[in-house]
Amino acid sequence: MKTLKVVKIGGKIIDDEIALDLFLKDFANIKSPKILVHGGGKSASQLMEKMNIEVKMTNGRRITDADTLDIVTMVYAGRINKNITAKLQANKCNAMGFSGVDANTIVATKRPVADVDFGFVGDVSKVNTRILNLLLEHSITPVFCAITHDENGQLLNTNADTIASELAGAFAKQRKTELYYCFEKNGVLRDVNNDDSVIELINTKNYQKLIEEQVINDGMLPKLINCFNAIKMNVSKVCIGKSNMLFDTKSKFTTIQK
Amino acid sequence: MKTLKVVKIGGKIIDDEIALDLFLKDFANIKSPKILVHGGGKSASQLMEKMNIEVKMTNGRRITDADTLDIVTMVYAGRINKNITAKLQANKCNAMGFSGVDANTIVATKRPVADVDFGFVGDVSKVNTRILNLLLEHSITPVFCAITHDENGQLLNTNADTIASELAGAFAKQRKTELYYCFEKNGVLRDVNNDDSVIELINTKNYQKLIEEQVINDGMLPKLINCFNAIKMNVSKVCIGKSNMLFDTKSKFTTIQK
Repeated sequence: MKTLKVVKIGGKIIDDEIALDLFLKDFANIKSPKILVHGGGKSASQLMEKMNIEVKMTNGRRITDADTLDIVTMVYAGRINKNITAKLQANKCNAMGFSGVDANTIVATKRPVADVDFGFVGDVSKVNTRILNLLLEHSITPVFCAITHDENGQLLNTNADTIASELAGAFAKQRKTELYYCFEKNGVLRDVNNDDSVIELINTKNYQKLIEEQVINDGMLPKLINCFNAIKMNVSKVCIGKSNMLFDTKSKFTTIQK
Repeated sequence: MKTLKVVKIGGKIIDDEIALDLFLKDFANIKSPKILVHGGGKSASQLMEKMNIEVKMTNGRRITDADTLDIVTMVYAGRINKNITAKLQANKCNAMGFSGVDANTIVATKRPVADVDFGFVGDVSKVNTRILNLLLEHSITPVFCAITHDENGQLLNTNADTIASELAGAFAKQRKTELYYCFEKNGVLRDVNNDDSVIELINTKNYQKLIEEQVINDGMLPKLINCFNAIKMNVSKVCIGKSNMLFDTKSKFTTIQK
């Protein structure tokens, strides 16, 4: 089987229409089987503001009450997913929008209430690849938003980086799989203000030191946990950087290894 | 190949949570291959009101400007489609949400501006059944919302009755296909206030007379045009009525024939 590329794009690409169009044109041209996972960007919060729904956060993390779940379902699975899918179709990429609900592809468990009640937030418990494999074999490109379900009718809001990592990990059991986290920077930076200060390799040896030095901060830490999680599940290549890393092997980006 | 049932549910079932849950439980139990098509209900207009977006209508038909298209995409493809799909999953029906964009299943053409500019409204020009057949063979139940695209990146709002009719017509070329329009009444009624006054058979012979007698009025006429359209495309059975017509052959409903 051909190598599968799982590509995640973050919020800042989604919020920038020109950057998104350029990315999707490039992504459509990837010849190998591929899956796109997209985050949400600012548009859910903006819609909540318009509707006078309070955006509830704790330690920088969103609390998903029933109203918030409704909004993110509409924005992620509706507005963003269908527009991205239509644009890929326009670029001759036979894309198909997915949430974890569809064909029961990603099952999650509502996060138990501990110190914080995150509300309708789901932690991935199972990825079903059967139908996805069937579609990939027929040249379909799945496009995932970060909505999952609990198999009992409840939709759940799930971290898009985690969706990408869990999808890649599930496919890595069956075929060579690579995972790319695309965002607006060249990779994990030693100096956040200097896009040339890319740390080209992060592995279990230098990881702890980078955390202690606070080079890896609160914003980047969850992404790296997802990267190491993917590696543990035998994903053969895990990278963080600008989307040109997908095409230009000379570009600088961060590779995460064991 | 087994008979395919294409079932369309209208807005009033969608707006009534208890009725919807009951319907989905029944629908999940249909043993033959099946496709569900859902309308939008009132929730798009309600969301527009909340957001102070003007609901523009002409002769009872919605004008889909850019803001309206955004709302219907969020509500139909996001909120309604994902909730229905999750509920079918909870009923052990392996459902998969679709818009016409997904896998390029339904292509439409933006309606040309004549007396009225309907905005981003699409008339179906092509139905691609290849991927849908593949999924049906693997026991997947497609669930369609009424959003389509023009293959050039533009989403379009399309009548859900038409989506159901065009889907059924496309499949009828390949297999025995039946089309069921489920709504809150027992069928086409001779007296709109008497649910027992079902016209059990409408065909090309009594159709014109029923229009002249104004038994078939403005609200029902487009649905019947879709029914006759399906029959012209060799759909073997076309019915209008309450959802119990799917299971209870003794119940009264309207059958449309050549």
